[in-house]
Amino acid sequence: MSTVTVVAKVTAQNDAVDAVKTELLKLVPETRKEEGCLEYRLHQDRDDPAVFVFYENWKSLEHLEQHMKSKHFQEYVTAVEDIIAGKAVHVLTEIA
Amino acid sequence: MSTVTVVAKVTAQNDAVDAVKTELLKLVPETRKEEGCLEYRLHQDRDDPAVFVFYENWKSLEHLEQHMKSKHFQEYVTAVEDIIAGKAVHVLTEIA
Repeated sequence: MSTVTVVAKVTAQNDAVDAVKTELLKLVPETRKEEGCLEYRLHQDRDDPAVFVFYENWKSLEHLEQHMKSKHFQEYVTAVEDIIAGKAVHVLTEIA
Repeated sequence: MSTVTVVAKVTAQNDAVDAVKTELLKLVPETRKEEGCLEYRLHQDRDDPAVFVFYENWKSLEHLEQHMKSKHFQEYVTAVEDIIAGKAVHVLTEIA
């Protein structure tokens, strides 16, 4: 099993920044309790507050996949699907 | 002074992935010696090896700006400018 890093960018619709931020913040404590969650860190862009970036590390791909099927993650996806403008996810390996 | 997080995505031209990777790896030890460098972590995308992502934390914006003027960073910029396909930099604040 090798550690998997995720960098996920979420862009809120301009009239929904606070609502998206609330949903993202809700996700953090639940996710950090999950088995295999090594790091789960949420950031907001200093120049464009509508942009949020997660930096995550997971014990394995299986742990990441379990996360994405979790009840709290699915509830998050449903809660923001109509209020985000876009998202981009990179699944990565730390090389240095 | 508040910590500044940077997520920087660098996309190599497809025929220059190894060359860009070499330059990125060269950047890491020098940067980690810099004052105010709290984290400087390099990743490669599992699905698209041409994509590299830095996750960085700096003691302050001033420390980050010093980094970008440093000799090793400027040498890196010159070395890759003709062999990268794109880059995207987000300057962020960690909120959770």
